[in-house]
Amino acid sequence: MSAESLLRPLIRDAQESPIRAMLALAAEPDTISLAGGHPDPALLPRDWLCEAAQSVLSRIDARALQYGGTEGVPALRETICPLLATRSIAVSPAEVLVTTGSQQGISLLARVLIEPGDGVALAHYNYPAALQAFRFAGAQLHALNDDLEGLGELARSAAGKRLKAVYLVPSFANPTAHVLSLSARLRLLDEARRAGICVIEDDPYGELWFEQPPPLSLYALNQTNSIGAHVVYLTSFSKTVMPALRLGALLAPPVIRRGVTLAKQACDVHSGSLEQLFLNRMLQSERLDEHLKRLRAAYKLKADTLTQALASMAGPVLEFSPPAGGMFVWAQFTAAARHLARIDWFAFGRRHRVLALPDKAFAAAGVGGSHIRLSFANPPLAALREGVRRLAVGLENA
Amino acid sequence: MSAESLLRPLIRDAQESPIRAMLALAAEPDTISLAGGHPDPALLPRDWLCEAAQSVLSRIDARALQYGGTEGVPALRETICPLLATRSIAVSPAEVLVTTGSQQGISLLARVLIEPGDGVALAHYNYPAALQAFRFAGAQLHALNDDLEGLGELARSAAGKRLKAVYLVPSFANPTAHVLSLSARLRLLDEARRAGICVIEDDPYGELWFEQPPPLSLYALNQTNSIGAHVVYLTSFSKTVMPALRLGALLAPPVIRRGVTLAKQACDVHSGSLEQLFLNRMLQSERLDEHLKRLRAAYKLKADTLTQALASMAGPVLEFSPPAGGMFVWAQFTAAARHLARIDWFAFGRRHRVLALPDKAFAAAGVGGSHIRLSFANPPLAALREGVRRLAVGLENA
Repeated sequence: MSAESLLRPLIRDAQESPIRAMLALAAEPDTISLAGGHPDPALLPRDWLCEAAQSVLSRIDARALQYGGTEGVPALRETICPLLATRSIAVSPAEVLVTTGSQQGISLLARVLIEPGDGVALAHYNYPAALQAFRFAGAQLHALNDDLEGLGELARSAAGKRLKAVYLVPSFANPTAHVLSLSARLRLLDEARRAGICVIEDDPYGELWFEQPPPLSLYALNQTNSIGAHVVYLTSFSKTVMPALRLGALLAPPVIRRGVTLAKQACDVHSGSLEQLFLNRMLQSERLDEHLKRLRAAYKLKADTLTQALASMAGPVLEFSPPAGGMFVWAQFTAAARHLARIDWFAFGRRHRVLALPDKAFAAAGVGGSHIRLSFANPPLAALREGVRRLAVGLENA
Repeated sequence: MSAESLLRPLIRDAQESPIRAMLALAAEPDTISLAGGHPDPALLPRDWLCEAAQSVLSRIDARALQYGGTEGVPALRETICPLLATRSIAVSPAEVLVTTGSQQGISLLARVLIEPGDGVALAHYNYPAALQAFRFAGAQLHALNDDLEGLGELARSAAGKRLKAVYLVPSFANPTAHVLSLSARLRLLDEARRAGICVIEDDPYGELWFEQPPPLSLYALNQTNSIGAHVVYLTSFSKTVMPALRLGALLAPPVIRRGVTLAKQACDVHSGSLEQLFLNRMLQSERLDEHLKRLRAAYKLKADTLTQALASMAGPVLEFSPPAGGMFVWAQFTAAARHLARIDWFAFGRRHRVLALPDKAFAAAGVGGSHIRLSFANPPLAALREGVRRLAVGLENA
């Protein structure tokens, strides 16, 4: 047997993410990437981290260097609770599972919920690594619109018998920047409760609002209103603190949390303890509030810069709603320019030295062909304007 | 649907590891645990870590705090290569995948190789978290003896059609301390090559030899002798440096490495970058050699202490081969005392304040009932002697 024939067909046939290829281009000289979802390097809190790390290392004992519990470092689980309380989520430390980023949460849920052929409902345009995690588990993906309308109907259909979960990023979604309204959240909870399916709420961007916070999370609404849906909440510190630590947290109904914990034990025993201790110390220092204010203001300015440049330079070609938070602008080609959506964006990026991602990179099904995702998070302000200029010039000549 | 009914049956019905319950007992006052596989806290290199961490933090830049590559921090991948060269393994940095402990390597391989019902051959008494990772992937486990004799026959049988891999810890295995001889390694490689199955070689203990190193790894033998088997090599820094960092590395044929990398991307994007940078600096400092010498001498002394105490106090009841490395003594009840093997070891531990793990905790199939695993790694020397005394007294009165 060849090594290839040993692989599961799902893995053997999996494509490298087109995003990875695009991001490789980003390293080329004088290239402006509006493609990645990376935080602004100027906003990564190096000093805050170093102070916390020094403090942890100066008093570290052998116990901290030993194997730890799968659920996470107890101090961090405790520190996360008051943070969640600011989001109207009431949990005790015992209910918090620390994960290696929220990506691990998604992947573990896929692994504990999905038998091959089971269904997951989600917005058509979605976070590619979530799509990948569900696909690798053998899930059947059911694409809905951004408000996940039709979930109830889907659940009552023939396919609904095997529907296990609905996955969503309710606030400032990737790639659409969509915010689910309060009424849509309540409707979704009600439909999920009736269908008895699991709501997987992935909330990496909720703290990155510009003018006002998004509606309460589905987890908080379900709890506060005693709705009785099975809601799992995933939060991440990648966007609010830094990606390198790879830490997030998962809240879930006890029986699901037990399954996820068993799966995590078999997956990596536990997440790295030092990084958990560093993050814990960072979160204890009360600098988070100040840091979040700084992030919100900086990303708002960057979003404004990008959208103003788009409006003034790419108006006839691209239209969009200004995002209310998060990291992305989801720009639609105007009817007259719709043919431009399907150009080769890799070749375009190489030629015009500006990178954007076509909607097909995010499509749960079908081929897209109407939008591009532009991220304002990573480049400096001047590069955002210059990037849009190159984009507009390139599209004019495409 | 209840939350419970949403879980995959494999997860819903999974038992908490009996080891975890036993380890909870270890925290009780005046209890000596010979049950865990935790390194000796006195041998965890706190100062070495702190110096490396200070050095990394003093010059850390924003790029290191950003998202990194799924394959691992480039500097660490480079540093690992000369380490592997000391084990006669020749690889380039591009061939090294950094994992969140070798546990993640096992789990990722299960996920990329195993469709439900596919087979994995392994020694009957085995590392429980590996058994769990394969079970969660839906694998059919085929239990062989410690030398994995009968692999060729199994591969040619009806079940062999779905046999995907053989998993083994070739040196100082958990729980048996077994070392696969050179001829057994070569035979296994030959049989695996003929069957076209993947050899998953898990080598967490290979560096912890007492008098002489174990035979070359199957990976090295396969490479050096151009045998042409599909060998995956997993190494871990949990036992040689410290468990808290949760870092290991995986080597695999390119097509399998590609699959594992895609799966890791969906699993946790990448392992924590800070801990990778810390480990990299530690490994660069050339203190590893000295540290390994210290570990080998200390664990040899601890193994001698345990085995001498066993021979002098538990001779009529337990027999064993002194281990040549690793962390475990695999003790068999003598024919006259065989009935003692099946006592309730949890109750025994609570009553006599000494913990040991019965063979059934490690059984890939069937019920065991002949051995216990005693670990000498964690307790201080006096506690090892006192632990054996309690064990002997308890067994006399059982």
